[in-house]
Amino acid sequence: MTKEELYQQIVEKKSYLCVGLDTDIQRIPKHLLKADDPIYEFNCRIIDATHDLCVAYKPNIAFYEAQGSKGWKSLEKTINYIPLTHFTIADAKRGDIGNTSSLYARAFFEKMDFDSITVAPYMGEDSVKPFLEFEDRWVILLGLTSNKGSQDFQQTLQGESNQPLYEKVLRTAQTWGTDENLMFVVGATHPEKFKEIRAIAPDNFLLVPGIGAQGGDLAAVSENGWTDQCGLLVNSSRGIIYAGDGEDFAQKARGAALKVQQEMEKIIDKKLNL
Amino acid sequence: MTKEELYQQIVEKKSYLCVGLDTDIQRIPKHLLKADDPIYEFNCRIIDATHDLCVAYKPNIAFYEAQGSKGWKSLEKTINYIPLTHFTIADAKRGDIGNTSSLYARAFFEKMDFDSITVAPYMGEDSVKPFLEFEDRWVILLGLTSNKGSQDFQQTLQGESNQPLYEKVLRTAQTWGTDENLMFVVGATHPEKFKEIRAIAPDNFLLVPGIGAQGGDLAAVSENGWTDQCGLLVNSSRGIIYAGDGEDFAQKARGAALKVQQEMEKIIDKKLNL
Repeated sequence: MTKEELYQQIVEKKSYLCVGLDTDIQRIPKHLLKADDPIYEFNCRIIDATHDLCVAYKPNIAFYEAQGSKGWKSLEKTINYIPLTHFTIADAKRGDIGNTSSLYARAFFEKMDFDSITVAPYMGEDSVKPFLEFEDRWVILLGLTSNKGSQDFQQTLQGESNQPLYEKVLRTAQTWGTDENLMFVVGATHPEKFKEIRAIAPDNFLLVPGIGAQGGDLAAVSENGWTDQCGLLVNSSRGIIYAGDGEDFAQKARGAALKVQQEMEKIIDKKLNL
Repeated sequence: MTKEELYQQIVEKKSYLCVGLDTDIQRIPKHLLKADDPIYEFNCRIIDATHDLCVAYKPNIAFYEAQGSKGWKSLEKTINYIPLTHFTIADAKRGDIGNTSSLYARAFFEKMDFDSITVAPYMGEDSVKPFLEFEDRWVILLGLTSNKGSQDFQQTLQGESNQPLYEKVLRTAQTWGTDENLMFVVGATHPEKFKEIRAIAPDNFLLVPGIGAQGGDLAAVSENGWTDQCGLLVNSSRGIIYAGDGEDFAQKARGAALKVQQEMEKIIDKKLNL
């Protein structure tokens, strides 16, 4: 999916919501456990109930790997079930030496049909570039993550420039890709940083985890991170998919997604002067 | 496997070789493609031919994921085939927020029976600790990697201390784990750095990729990185497993492994004054 196509989806649906499919066999409603593939079943019901309210889905690969080859099968089926209108993100945090990153790219862009993958920057240019070689596919590079551990290395000031590491990552990575194939992860738990980040990466989409269960603030993130093409994909996982745990879990998930979408609609209307 | 048990294996076999199972369906001998599961078949033959010459096996997870759920199955079968006497490394470069890292730990330590997993440090403490909570399992944290991209961020000097980022990673991570559950990746392509690294991490085992195809120097690495319990696992992947591509590929692989093991035996004999 191109940047322009993604923006069109955002405008049509009045939403920049990404639903995170962190599907944990231990947390899904008990009545689904009878199904042949409970994880896939759960995902289908969640997608059916939310697809008109969101523009993206983000399966968190760890949850599938924790079920072994069976979980990997559930993932393959899930990615095929997501409508082509939706931007898909393999939240995999991969990254390795060049020949290995190429293989990860094959896994997620060829073997499965993901639009994008999250990548960790620690190993530098040759670990990221193989992913950027695929047309109309995206790297979503970790910038400033939502967790407490983002203090440990990402926010340490670098000697030559006195900039924190994540700023160096944002600047350096823009010499590898463009705003047409490179996004950054910036956690909603740092709303005050979005203005500085926009000064460094004015046009790149940001994938923003951390609202909902992790406590980030949608209004502040949107105020500080907005670009002329929205530029934000705000993710909620647990807050939506586990909103209910009974027979009506999908309706409950829809309710939770609707609440976020309505907040986004207000912001979009204001930003576009509608 | 404990550190002491690993050291015993090293002394018994006169080897600190790790064989990397970077098994690429496009590179394995053509006659294996008739097999039901060619990747697994290849791995079994390589393991049969090399197990008395090495102390560890390191499947590179990307190569299995590139084959989808089928590849994941080959991986599950491979890890069960490796003798219990061998230290097993899931070369996966994982790392995510706490609840997600816990799932990756389940995938590799419970669903599969790996002794260790490589982890990327970018997301900090809460992304690494879930792996350290498993008894007798190991985190192998990326320190200074073997690739060119290690220049981009790992070697940038940090403001407060003027130390490169990878040194900060080595120091910080030692407050999370001990030399009984934490190793570091240090590429053989930086042999001159091993002395400084030993000043920071005197007792941790180092996983050393980059000899063979990537050009690192075993003698220099061993001279500078040795501890009183060896402290090194030196990996070779392509140089061993693709030493031949005919019917005799396993014998060729054995030959290549034997060459490295013999070099290691000389070093061990010298170090232990045998």
